[in-house]
This record gives sequence, C-alpha cells and structure tokens, in this order.
Amino acid sequence: MCGIIGVSQHKDAAQLAYSGLYALQHRGEEAAGIATYDGHNILIKKQPGLVADAFDERAINYLQGDSAIGHCRYSTTGSSNQKNIQPFMVTHKNTPIAIAHNGNLTNTEALYRRLEEEGSIFQTTMDSEIIIHLLARQRNGSIEDAFVKVLAQLEGAYSLVFLVEGTVVGARDPRGFRPLCLGTIDGTYMLASESCSLDLIGAKFEREIEPGEIVFIKGKEIKSVYMPERKTMKKSHCIFENIYFARPDSDIFDDNIYQVRKRLGEQLAREFPVSDADFVMAIPDSGNYAALGYANELGLPLEMGIVRNHYIGRTFIQPTQLLRDLRVKIKLNPIQSVLQGKRIVVVEDSIVRGTTSRSRVESLRKAGAKEIHMRISCPPIKSPCFYGIDFPDSNELIAANKTVEEIAGFIKVDSLKYLSVEGMLKAMSLPENFCDACFTGNYPVQPPTNRSKYLMEHPYHHNTGG
Amino acid sequence: MCGIIGVSQHKDAAQLAYSGLYALQHRGEEAAGIATYDGHNILIKKQPGLVADAFDERAINYLQGDSAIGHCRYSTTGSSNQKNIQPFMVTHKNTPIAIAHNGNLTNTEALYRRLEEEGSIFQTTMDSEIIIHLLARQRNGSIEDAFVKVLAQLEGAYSLVFLVEGTVVGARDPRGFRPLCLGTIDGTYMLASESCSLDLIGAKFEREIEPGEIVFIKGKEIKSVYMPERKTMKKSHCIFENIYFARPDSDIFDDNIYQVRKRLGEQLAREFPVSDADFVMAIPDSGNYAALGYANELGLPLEMGIVRNHYIGRTFIQPTQLLRDLRVKIKLNPIQSVLQGKRIVVVEDSIVRGTTSRSRVESLRKAGAKEIHMRISCPPIKSPCFYGIDFPDSNELIAANKTVEEIAGFIKVDSLKYLSVEGMLKAMSLPENFCDACFTGNYPVQPPTNRSKYLMEHPYHHNTGG
Amino acid sequence: MCGIIGVSQHKDAAQLAYSGLYALQHRGEEAAGIATYDGHNILIKKQPGLVADAFDERAINYLQGDSAIGHCRYSTTGSSNQKNIQPFMVTHKNTPIAIAHNGNLTNTEALYRRLEEEGSIFQTTMDSEIIIHLLARQRNGSIEDAFVKVLAQLEGAYSLVFLVEGTVVGARDPRGFRPLCLGTIDGTYMLASESCSLDLIGAKFEREIEPGEIVFIKGKEIKSVYMPERKTMKKSHCIFENIYFARPDSDIFDDNIYQVRKRLGEQLAREFPVSDADFVMAIPDSGNYAALGYANELGLPLEMGIVRNHYIGRTFIQPTQLLRDLRVKIKLNPIQSVLQGKRIVVVEDSIVRGTTSRSRVESLRKAGAKEIHMRISCPPIKSPCFYGIDFPDSNELIAANKTVEEIAGFIKVDSLKYLSVEGMLKAMSLPENFCDACFTGNYPVQPPTNRSKYLMEHPYHHNTGG
Amino acid sequence: MCGIIGVSQHKDAAQLAYSGLYALQHRGEEAAGIATYDGHNILIKKQPGLVADAFDERAINYLQGDSAIGHCRYSTTGSSNQKNIQPFMVTHKNTPIAIAHNGNLTNTEALYRRLEEEGSIFQTTMDSEIIIHLLARQRNGSIEDAFVKVLAQLEGAYSLVFLVEGTVVGARDPRGFRPLCLGTIDGTYMLASESCSLDLIGAKFEREIEPGEIVFIKGKEIKSVYMPERKTMKKSHCIFENIYFARPDSDIFDDNIYQVRKRLGEQLAREFPVSDADFVMAIPDSGNYAALGYANELGLPLEMGIVRNHYIGRTFIQPTQLLRDLRVKIKLNPIQSVLQGKRIVVVEDSIVRGTTSRSRVESLRKAGAKEIHMRISCPPIKSPCFYGIDFPDSNELIAANKTVEEIAGFIKVDSLKYLSVEGMLKAMSLPENFCDACFTGNYPVQPPTNRSKYLMEHPYHHNTGG
Repeated sequence: MCGIIGVSQHKDAAQLAYSGLYALQHRGEEAAGIATYDGHNILIKKQPGLVADAFDERAINYLQGDSAIGHCRYSTTGSSNQKNIQPFMVTHKNTPIAIAHNGNLTNTEALYRRLEEEGSIFQTTMDSEIIIHLLARQRNGSIEDAFVKVLAQLEGAYSLVFLVEGTVVGARDPRGFRPLCLGTIDGTYMLASESCSLDLIGAKFEREIEPGEIVFIKGKEIKSVYMPERKTMKKSHCIFENIYFARPDSDIFDDNIYQVRKRLGEQLAREFPVSDADFVMAIPDSGNYAALGYANELGLPLEMGIVRNHYIGRTFIQPTQLLRDLRVKIKLNPIQSVLQGKRIVVVEDSIVRGTTSRSRVESLRKAGAKEIHMRISCPPIKSPCFYGIDFPDSNELIAANKTVEEIAGFIKVDSLKYLSVEGMLKAMSLPENFCDACFTGNYPVQPPTNRSKYLMEHPYHHNTGG
Repeated sequence: MCGIIGVSQHKDAAQLAYSGLYALQHRGEEAAGIATYDGHNILIKKQPGLVADAFDERAINYLQGDSAIGHCRYSTTGSSNQKNIQPFMVTHKNTPIAIAHNGNLTNTEALYRRLEEEGSIFQTTMDSEIIIHLLARQRNGSIEDAFVKVLAQLEGAYSLVFLVEGTVVGARDPRGFRPLCLGTIDGTYMLASESCSLDLIGAKFEREIEPGEIVFIKGKEIKSVYMPERKTMKKSHCIFENIYFARPDSDIFDDNIYQVRKRLGEQLAREFPVSDADFVMAIPDSGNYAALGYANELGLPLEMGIVRNHYIGRTFIQPTQLLRDLRVKIKLNPIQSVLQGKRIVVVEDSIVRGTTSRSRVESLRKAGAKEIHMRISCPPIKSPCFYGIDFPDSNELIAANKTVEEIAGFIKVDSLKYLSVEGMLKAMSLPENFCDACFTGNYPVQPPTNRSKYLMEHPYHHNTGG
Repeated sequence: MCGIIGVSQHKDAAQLAYSGLYALQHRGEEAAGIATYDGHNILIKKQPGLVADAFDERAINYLQGDSAIGHCRYSTTGSSNQKNIQPFMVTHKNTPIAIAHNGNLTNTEALYRRLEEEGSIFQTTMDSEIIIHLLARQRNGSIEDAFVKVLAQLEGAYSLVFLVEGTVVGARDPRGFRPLCLGTIDGTYMLASESCSLDLIGAKFEREIEPGEIVFIKGKEIKSVYMPERKTMKKSHCIFENIYFARPDSDIFDDNIYQVRKRLGEQLAREFPVSDADFVMAIPDSGNYAALGYANELGLPLEMGIVRNHYIGRTFIQPTQLLRDLRVKIKLNPIQSVLQGKRIVVVEDSIVRGTTSRSRVESLRKAGAKEIHMRISCPPIKSPCFYGIDFPDSNELIAANKTVEEIAGFIKVDSLKYLSVEGMLKAMSLPENFCDACFTGNYPVQPPTNRSKYLMEHPYHHNTGG
Repeated sequence: MCGIIGVSQHKDAAQLAYSGLYALQHRGEEAAGIATYDGHNILIKKQPGLVADAFDERAINYLQGDSAIGHCRYSTTGSSNQKNIQPFMVTHKNTPIAIAHNGNLTNTEALYRRLEEEGSIFQTTMDSEIIIHLLARQRNGSIEDAFVKVLAQLEGAYSLVFLVEGTVVGARDPRGFRPLCLGTIDGTYMLASESCSLDLIGAKFEREIEPGEIVFIKGKEIKSVYMPERKTMKKSHCIFENIYFARPDSDIFDDNIYQVRKRLGEQLAREFPVSDADFVMAIPDSGNYAALGYANELGLPLEMGIVRNHYIGRTFIQPTQLLRDLRVKIKLNPIQSVLQGKRIVVVEDSIVRGTTSRSRVESLRKAGAKEIHMRISCPPIKSPCFYGIDFPDSNELIAANKTVEEIAGFIKVDSLKYLSVEGMLKAMSLPENFCDACFTGNYPVQPPTNRSKYLMEHPYHHNTGG
C-alpha cells in the first residue's frame, strides 16, 4: 500500500506535502519522498524509513518551489532498493516529470516486454516507471490526450499523482480501487489519498476524485477529463480500506471510517453476542472502534486491558528463549489487575496469519484471563489481493487453510466468531460499490499470470545497489 | 525524571537492561545508557534520544558481561551535554564503578563546593557525580559502611543503582520519593524503577526496595543494610507518579496504577458529574483510565473522539501562520463525525501550563463539539517539585497564577472542575504515605536555596562540547 | 581526465581494480567507482573523492565476482552530480552492462538529440551514456559487430572499458588520443590506462591497445577486432600526457615518461642555459625530472629548495588577508637557508594560468632568492583541448593572451624561457604520432560547435540531486 | 611524538592554530585537537586522524575566541582512546584550563599513585593529566609560582602549552629535550614546536623557548620565569629530531635541518664513499637531503629512481599472497628505465626494524638494479628512547641485535655502512648540547622502572570507550 499527495501553487508546497504525508504514514512505513518544481527543475528528496525520519528542516528548505507531490510506500511491486522509492522522476526533452503511485497494475509484464524490445532502458523495477516510458513515447497531441491514451493501456488499480513542470495531475483507475481526495487550501486545489491528510493541514475536503477521472491542477484552476472506460465498469472500492487500512478520522468511499467500524462492531454483537461476559476489550488500537460498538450494543462494560507502548521503534531483541515473550509484550502489555479471573470478549479487526492473535491470547492468559471469547469485525480472509493490499501468499492466510473451529483451536480461545459477509456489507453506506475479493474470491479484474512482485527484475538482480 | 535498572549475573545482562529500559521509556526520553561489567572493565554505551534509537545489535553485543545497570533520562540537573548522560563511570584505584540516579538532591551546592575546595575535579555537571567523589574519598571500612556513610550525606530524593565491578547496588532515600522495585529472573535478583519493566522481560516482581534500604546484589545473593534515618522519617512517595507519571501497568507504592487512575475518575464523577452529557471522552492516552472510571460511575457512553497518531517523531514544521494548528493536530486529531453538535465531558489527567489544553479544546470546537465540560483527575498544580518532577517555574504553572474560573476562561470550556485533594488521597490505598507538595506546598524536605538546574556549571559553561 | 581499469576472471578482481586505480589517482581525483560481475548481477560502488576514501574493506567485500572495471574521474563532461560518477550501469533485456570512459566525444549533441527524439530517457548527463543507448538499440548480430557499429558513430577521444556480464571489453579511438595498456596477471588479461597501474599490482605489461582496436577479454582468452577507420587516420597521442599528465613510472605511447621528461630538461638546457646560476631547482614534484636533466646537461648543482608537504587534504582556510600566503605555502614551503642570496634556475613543467607560478616566485623571493630564472619544459599553451584535458577557457590561458615577455613580467622573474615546439617533439621517440593542438592549434578532429560541458543538461538542471 | 601550538589574542586564533598544526602534522598523525577561550568557556574540538580530516569550516567557526592551543599526537603514553586526545581540559573552581604536551615524563607512576591515594579521580590515562591535578591542588600564591612548583615535580621531557582562561602558558623542561619556538604575528606572541609552523602562517620566528623557561603570554605582553633546575642541568636536545623527525624547513636547536642533513650526507660520503657508482639516489623523501650531500661531495650523478605516490591514505589491501608487494610499491615505486643494470648508492636516513629497508631493496632489485650499496646518515639505533620518540622495544631494533654485517645480509645489499657517532655530532653546530642515548645508551635522565605506555590504566582497561 502507499499514500500519495499533491499540492499546486502554494508557497509552502513542500511543508504541506510533508505534513500531509505524516497523516498518511499508516499507508506505508517503508519509505517516503517528495518532489517539488522550482520553476526550472524538479527537486527530489526520498529516504527509506518513516516520513518524520526522512525529512528534516534542511530537506524541506531544499525542496524549493510552489508545487509538490509526495509518496509514502509499503513495497508492493519491485524490491526495496533505494532507486525504487517514489516519486520517480525523469527529464525528457527538457521537460521534468515526476510520478507517485498507489495501487498495482495487472498487465505489467506485457507492457514491460514491449517497451524493452523497442529500446527503452529501465532505471527501476517499479511498474510505475512503465507509465513514464509510455508518456515519453506520446509524441503529438495535447497533454490531456496523452494522459488518456497512456492510462487506457493500464489495467488494475491506480491512484496517481504527477508533477509535470508546475502542473499537478491526479488520476484514479475506472473502478476506483484506491481512494484519492480533492481538497482546497488558501483557494488552491490539492490531492491526498485520504481526507485525514487534508484535515491535518487545515485544507477543506471538497470531494473524492471519481473513478476514471483525470484532473489537471494549476493552483485555483482545475480541469477534469474522463476515461471512456469508466462508463462500462462497476465500482470496486477496496473494502479492506474500511475495515483496517484507512485512518478512523478519514472520510473515503462516501463514508466515515470511525462510524463504519463502530457499526461493524455493533453488527458483530448482534450476530455473535457474549451477553454474560465480565467486560469487552479491544486489541488496541485497531480494534478500538469495533469494541466500542460491540460493548455499546450489548450494554457490557468496556475495559482497556492492554497498555499500548508508544515508543515502538526498531527494537533489537536477541534470539534467546528467555525473551520469546518480549516481542509480543513490548508493544502491548496486558494488565493483570484488570484481567485476573475474568471472562472477556476480545474484539479484533481481522486475522491474517493467526500467529499474532495466538501470541496475544497467550499473553492475556498469562495475565490471568479466565475465559477468552474472540470476535472479529470482518469475515475470514481467504484470497490474495492483486490491487495493492500486501497480504501474504494463500498458504500463509490462515482462513484459506483452516476452518473457523480449527483457527479457534490454533489461537486457543474459548470461542471465535467472524462477522458474516452480509453483515459486513450491511455496515457500509453503499454496499454495491465494493471489491470484497479477499473474502469471496470474486475478482473484478483478471489477476496477472505472473504474480511475482519482482517481475521487472533480472532473475538474480535484487541486490544491485549503488 | 529518569528510569533506572540493574541486572546481576545473568548471561543476557545487556539485553535485559535494554529491554527493561524500553518499558521505562516514559520516565525519560532525552537520553539512554547502559553499563556492563565484563569481568575486567565496565563498558558503557550512551546516546541522546530514545532507548530504541540509542542501542542496536552492535551496541548490545559490545556490552559484554553478566551484570549491567541502565538509565533513561529526562534532564533534571545539569545541562543536556553528552557528558551528562548516565550511567556515569570512573575507575579509581583500579576499581571501576558506575552509577545511575533517579531523583534530585537538595544539598548539591554545599557538597560540590566542599569537594572542589579539597581538590576534586568534576567531569560533569550532574549531582550524581558528587556521590562518586564522596565514595572515592571513603578510604577504610567495608563497602556496606562506605555506602551508608556516603548516602547519609545526601539530602533529597534518590533511587540509585551502582555497578561496582560485578556487584549491583540499589538504594532508595529514607523517604522513598521515587519508586525502586526488586525482581527475580532465572533465580537472580534485579532492580527496576517500575514493575512494568520486570513484567515486560518476564521477571517476577518480588517487592519494592524499602525507603532507606541499600541492597547489594550478586546473582542469587542479596544483602540489605538500612540507613538509620529511615526510622525517623515519614514516607513521602510522589503522588504525581500515580496520577500521571508511572505506567498504568505498574504496581508501585503498594498499588496498581490502572486501578488508581480509574478510581480517580470515579471519584471525579462523584464530585463533579455532568449526568446529561452526550458522552464522555479522554484526552488520549493519559486520560483514558480516569475517563473510563468517570463514564462507568455515571453510566454515560464513552467515545474515542480523538485519534492518536502513532508515528510521532521529531517533526519539522515551519513557523508559518498557516500551519499553527498542525502542531496540535498532528498528534491527536478530533473526529468530526463523532463530535458534531455534541455536549461532551472531556477527562484529562492534569493541567500544567494550560496552553496544550487550550489548543485541544479549540480543535474539538472546530470539529463541531457544541458544549465542552472538562474534568481533571487531580487538584490544581500550584507549587514546583524539588524531588525530581520537572515542572516549569511557578510563573508558568497556570494554577499558581489563576483561579479555576480564570483557567476555564483561558482554555475556553463551558465548565472546568478539578478533583479535590481529599478525593485524590481517598483514591490511594495508603494515603498517608504520599508527598503532595505540588498541590499543597507542604514540602517534606527543605527546598534548596539555589534552585538552578545548572548549579554545578560555570555561569557561562553550558555549551562546552567536545 | 580519467583513469580506467579492467580485470577479467581473477578471484581478487575488485581488489586488483582498486589497487590499480590507486596508481591512476593522478588521472582523476574527483570521484572513483568499481563495478564487478558476480555471475548474476553487476555490483557497483562509487563515491566522490579519492580512491582511498571511496573504498574500504566493506566496499571491496561487497564487490563480489571475478571480473571488474574501475574508473577515477576528473569531470570533463556533465556536472559533478553523484549520478555522473562512473562506471555507469544498466540492465537491458536481462543483460547487465557497465561502462567506464576516458576522453571526450566531439559529436555528443547530434547523437543525444537523435536518441531522445526516438524515445530514449537519459539518466545522466555524461556523453558515456550515449554509448550505452546506442548499444541497446543494436538488435541483431554478434557482440563484436555491435561494438564496431556503435563505436563507428562516435567522434573524438575515447579509451573505454566495458563489463558485459563477465566479459571485459576494451576499446581505443582510431587516433589513439588517450593511452590504454594491456597486461597479464596470473595468466589472465587485464587493461589499465597506464603501465604504472599494472606495475603496482604485479601485472606484466604486454603492450598498448592499438588505436582503433577493440578487445574482448575472458580470462586467458582475448579476441581483437579493428575499426576500419584506423587505417585512414593519423595517430594523435596527447603530448600533454608525456609532459605533465602521466606518471613518471609509466611506459605509454612507446616511451618511458621519466626519460622523456629528463630529455625535455636536457633540451631546455641546450636551448636556454643559465650557466652561471648558483644552482638549479624544481617546482616539486612535477618539475623534478626536467630539473635533473637541466642540471646534468649544464653540470650545475641541484638543490631541493622547496619542501613538499605530504599531508595535503581538503584544507579549510578562512578568506582573510592575513592568510593569503598560506594557500601557496601549505603545500610547498621554500627553505630560507638554501635560497638566501642565490641566483637560481627554477624548472617547471608548464604554465597554465600563471597565477600559481606568480605565487611560487613571490614565496621564493620572500625566502631570499636574489635572482630567479624560470625555465618551462614545454612550449606556451595557447589553445583549449577538446579531447579530454580540462584546460580553462582561452581567456584564462595566459599564453593565449600575453607574450613570453609579458608573462615574465606577470610572474616577476628575472628571465623566462619556454622549450620550443621542435625541441619538445625531438624529446619524443616517435614525434610524428602526437597531437600538439594545445601548443599549435592544429586540431586533428573538428572541435564541437557547442563546447559546453553541460550540453546534455536542461539549461537549469545542474542541481537535481536525490 | 607530538606537535603543539599556542596563539594569544589574535582574532583568527583557531585558524592560525589549525594552519600551524598543519605544518606540524609530521610530528603526530594519530589525532589532532584545538582548544580556544571565548571569554567565558574553553571550547574544544578533537578527532582521531590527520589535522585536515579533523577540522572543517564548521569546526573552525565553532572555535570562537582570540586565544587557542593545539596539539597533534602520535600516542606515546596512554592508549589510543578518544578521551586521550589532547588538548585536555577541565574546569576547576570556575576556571577553565587546557593543556597540550609534547614529550614523556619519567616519574609518572609515583605521581599518579600519590594523587589517587589523595582522592583524585582520573579521566584519562595520559601523563599530561597528572600536571592538571597537581595544578588543581596548588591553593595559594601567584599563577607563576604555581607553575614553577608543579613543573619542579616533573621529571623527563616536556614541552607544554596551557590555556588558562585567555593566557597562553608555554614551558620547556630544564634539559630542553623537545623543541619549542616563540614567534610573533601581527605584534602578538605565539608558540609552536617547530619554526616551520611559524613560517607557514607568516609569523616571525623570534627565538626558541629556553630549557627551564616558562612564558606567560597575553597578546603583546610576555613574561618569563625560570625553573631553578635549569642552571645545574646539561642541555639534552634530541638528536633524532635533527636526523629524522623535524621538518627540513625548520630551524630548531640553533641549526637549520636541511643543512644539517646535507652535512650528514657529505660526512657519510667522506667516511664511506662508493666513488665508481653509476649514480646516487635517496629513499624519498626523508633521505633526499643526505643523498644530495653524498652525491655532491663525491661528484656523482643523482637520480630519482623511486616515484613517491602523493595519494597515500588509509589503503585497504587484502591479505593475499598475490598482493604482498603492493604494500611496498603503493607508496614508493622504483622506475625500471632508470635502474636497469645499474650499480647504485642508496641513501637512507635511518634503519629501525630493517623490514622496510629489506622490502625496498627487494623492489629495487626487481626493477633491475645490479649492485646496491646502502648508506645510512646516522649510527645504528641500539637503545630505546624514554623522552618521547616512539621506537619499538629493543628486541625489535635490528641494530640492538645484529652486527652491521648481519644487517647487510638481512636486507640483502652489496654493502651497508652507517655514519659514525663522531661524524654525526660533527655535522651539528653545537654538538655538546645533544642527547644521543638511542645510539650510545648514555641516558641523561634515569629511565622509569615501569616502562609501560599503559602505566595509568587498569591492567585490563584498554577498551573502555563511550
């Protein structure tokens, strides 16, 4: 997954992009980058690591210019090389152009083979670079035409921002897999993956970019063109954004995430109540809102039986038997005085591999919990995602390989219940607009044949650094 | 404030000290250090910054040896120079000795002047170094006698750990201002400021070191000696540890912090209820437990109206008018869909300067809150602390200069109420054992005449780095 | 100028390339790089700065593989960006290829414009990248044919090494402007700009690569192909390599540099003797050999009147009037006890701008020299070089703007004499094989119309770093 | 060995100290440091490595103030820890004081044991720290008296500079083992180990500080006091400074080093001529001046048969058999075209272990030299130095263990001759003022019983870093 942002003709462009990325940090912790246009050049700073670590005062001051795009990334295609950090920039015929991309293309291989055959030399192993080469080969016509022609060649999921000299271009694939929001600040337009990013920097949330819409922004001016494909394609918003990925203070896909999650918890309580539990608690913080909904719906007390440590960084822990619990408890520590001897409902937003849940349950038991009933605010995840969510392979998805009863046995709870697919959709305002392929296997776009993340890399070329 | 830890004769001494410090991070974010004894030398690594940033695999591997002490610090005496990071170590007559200190001495000046006159050359500007010079001048007698004689010369607050070759020494001042806990792991004894630190690394919490007790630990052997002063002195545990400073998953001062804070909230609800509010919410995370108590006591719904950003690091924000809200919202963002049009009770653990509360209230109003009733789970803070809590000067403590009504006006709430001193003490298990000087001005130890943090520094010598 | 090296199928390939570059350091102090082929990937390390600073044990260990090419550079085309450091590498159709280049192309502009029009996206602003794009567009035929066809499109000066998977390819332009030597070590072939590099690492100097020759090396196997152009073109070795640039312990252009320079000094003595001088001295170290020849020829004593400081690095000197002499004397300090009251002959290899000579003469006078007769072991430099020597613009070349008498006045010597063009050529073993354009203006290849070093850069794009 | 410098009341104090240290770099390459007094504090920057690497613009700008002392060091006492880099600074009773020391004390142990017994805690393991503790214990009397009393307690070799607030103090032991020169610049006084340092920065060399003299400098004011011991003690200048250590452009010990070395070569030619050699050459650069004298005296031609590489830094060379010659040749490469088939005289300034000479001779033979006659411009070094020259232990000094014939066999020359002691002394202007203990074993000051460099360190404490 990734977060993207674009700012046009604002004197604090780099600072706004940086601050806005800060609020999108949950969308990608691996690397961050910002590109600005100073009237002559596109300037770029990008770094592995968190946004706060990647930029300091010197970096922001270096990023002169009144237009900017930014990106934070969790690797979905290409390896983690420095060169694969976005934005990606080239200068072609004296025009500097930069791109930042959220989502995954599904026809990468065919496009890549064709371009190399025609003499293109690739600098990275990101599918995003393909888009730049396609643009460089558009020789005639307007810039709007060029973008429509190039995007028509792409299949899969993409929310994109471009910086073409001083123009910020935003685009969203015709199915609208990933979010992209339009805002205004001091009268000029800007773009961000989620509305929380606009909110943080004091921008006004105007609307979401529509599926298949391409916007060209120069400060107060905005021009939209539309891909013809949008008319024939069903909307396919990623429902996992609502369940887990997006921030609770974001409004995306025509809904508010906090309220969606509370409703998921309420629905879960209706489907699988434990009315005589001593109390309800969340696995913090992602389970907080569903737990609140669950407790409210049943009138049960809520406790915060786990303390979250706010100082989690890169921790070095020796691989010693002694410290095997440490990895689990260093982040979330159960409180014995709360848990001792209790029958509890634990609400969690989802289970992927099951190993983390199993460890959490074990640490709750050690802290004294007598009976543990786990409730999950989404259905079992059974199928991989090809549109940008970085689930593990099917053989590591526990629900693809075990029944709910077997999972309950594996994580050692007294009972385990998942929300139903119908219940989940009922908690959305517009249930028909979502892709739920990870739960149902109903893929709206044909998955790629070659599913490797490293498709554009020489079989052995994962390490070639500089 | 500071956190300290000590481990004796355990093969993973450095790793345990490091992991234990991790759970004490809230006690001091400015710097961290660990010293180990490898059988010949005391080895030290110390760094400004968080524990997770200060140590990596290489650092832990460097710290050979089976005994260790550690420290994380928030500067209370001495400037923030690198040399003032603890543990502090010297070798004297071929004996290496290291010290780590939590608390503040109140007779620093007299001791310092006397030692310099006698020819001692100081390396740092920390009051902790005085203790080492006093030890170096104890020529005869047993090590136990030497410690009793040296500590008898100190006044004020101190929880200390020493590493004397392979022996770990722990000591707590006769009034017991600061916590210090004794635990066991794999049969050997260890020390830590709070029990959460023992809990994290899988050690068993045995008991608190008693006020005026000095323990000498070598693995499974422990020997206690006692300062005669302890018999005549009243216990003076810092009540602000319970209200704000200690971790909710710690058991210190004969109580559990989570439960104490929940009781503070319940008492607050009894004293100042807002029974017809739409809901109760906390300023997360420090207000969470009191808010839970408050809501439960009145049967009011709880909401989590503010999202806490988990990626807070060193953020660079330009000093521009545009971004003046950013500093507030980047850490805690209110959710409009929850707050719009509501009458709310906001529970906060304490108010120091009032400026942060004012900003929070403003951001809640902007997010749509209609009526805001603020409830504080401790009394007004009116007097500075000389025993280790780093409050600002009196002229910056809002409650030292304004009435509660004036504070309510300043932070712009519809009502503001503080818990009473009696109510606060009632929430403690052993109310008579606490120092409440910051609320009442009743100081159990004479404050120092010269109150500068920089007492041991040349008037101009704050910057001499190397 | 630059130095290049290539090693094929030797287990210590990276170490040999590194050590060999060490001996080529005088050819380029700005940056250094090495690329190796590990059987799958080409690995690269490159850094601004000296060879010794650019590589350490970790770098050499990273550079796995038994084939390597290396480069040290003094910028002649392209700006000093990190991305412009060589070797330059791409992977195209799964084949990794790297290039290192010594010399300057003269038809860069036309090639560059054509390739961009056809859709190529350039990563650097080096003329060397053009060669790679030309190779990428060769679709059919053998590798030998591809190289002959691509090199035929280049005009100007180039000695090149390529790493194409495990094959090392060497090539020299048909006029042979720059040197390129073939050696053997442990039975395998290798390439280096100068023979001193082979000598240092214990390789045997076999012969020079011929002008217009392309060699394909795989360990013990070598295959040569020849460009048809070589038959019709006159050799044009750079005579300034012999006078100043190459190392005295190198054998290039069918001669030994030490002996050439001593003969230049002897010829200079015959043309412009000062038979009654007190002694002869050099401006060390570049004037040493000619000074020796000059003194021997006339039977005059030699003194070492200037001490060379061996610790010259990046010195920071404040721009204060007080220290204006420091820049001159920090490197070469005259010895008063030697110079006081003497009539001296000072031998220098060349004069470019004249400002350094002027400063040297001033410092000799201050140290007491009574009479200074300067003798230059080459003719006046009047014309710029387009084949790789980085002379300043004509308006800064003192001999392009002043007569010898005026120069004598400018640098304030009692007499100044330059070696004649005929005398210079006479000191070479094969006088007819040299380009002497910098002295005579007779350019063997048409100079480019656009003479900017920044030709391939967007007018404003000199600063776009990453 | 070490170099020291002091500047008083000059607005460019740090820059002058830095530039002056540059010219003293040959006296110590291990570390460098500068301390300045800014009117309130003493500021220090010190680093391992060369002067040019240790300081940059930021460091010089940090070093505010108009007085400075500086030091470059080759470890002679204490280990190479960061903390042992000089200047060493403390603040005592609000007075900051810094020290920089060239030479070795011989009564370190007794002083150190006494001070620790009295309660002093040492920060470093340098004998120089003892001097600071002695000063801190001087309670009454004038500053001049304090210095005389403290220095009277020291035995051995010391040239010292102190910075006491804004006063620069210089002192030289009563025998004058090490040099210390007084200069003036812009009317203010300054100090430097050698006159070349004054020369470089444009200061005027006034005189040498006398043995047993202590000078107190404040800008234009200078006050000298004298140690009573100077009257009864014979001068003992280190003759090895003249032979090898000092720079050829320095005037110290009432002589000029260039001329002294040339005279040593002339005397060597008279004692051991090889009149029919093809030519004379030096091992550059240290043998250059004696070689010149030798060749002149006999009328033999001089050649520069070895090229010195000017780019020697920290080179990483793999420990492979292949590259065993590399270590030798990377610094000095013999030129085959000069050496092939010749009978040569090679002049070297001294032989310590013999291994380097053996390697050089081997590389000369490989380059074709037919007959090699080695001439050494000093007598055989047979005894260690306790006054600051860091010779190896006796068992590694080749002349302490082998006859001249055996040495000739070991280094494989056709003949080997050393200059006689009498001949060496004859080349000095004032032969009676020198210590020649390394050649004769006649020690002017009793050597210490405990001869360890690590005397002040805990037996195992060599690695305690921070």
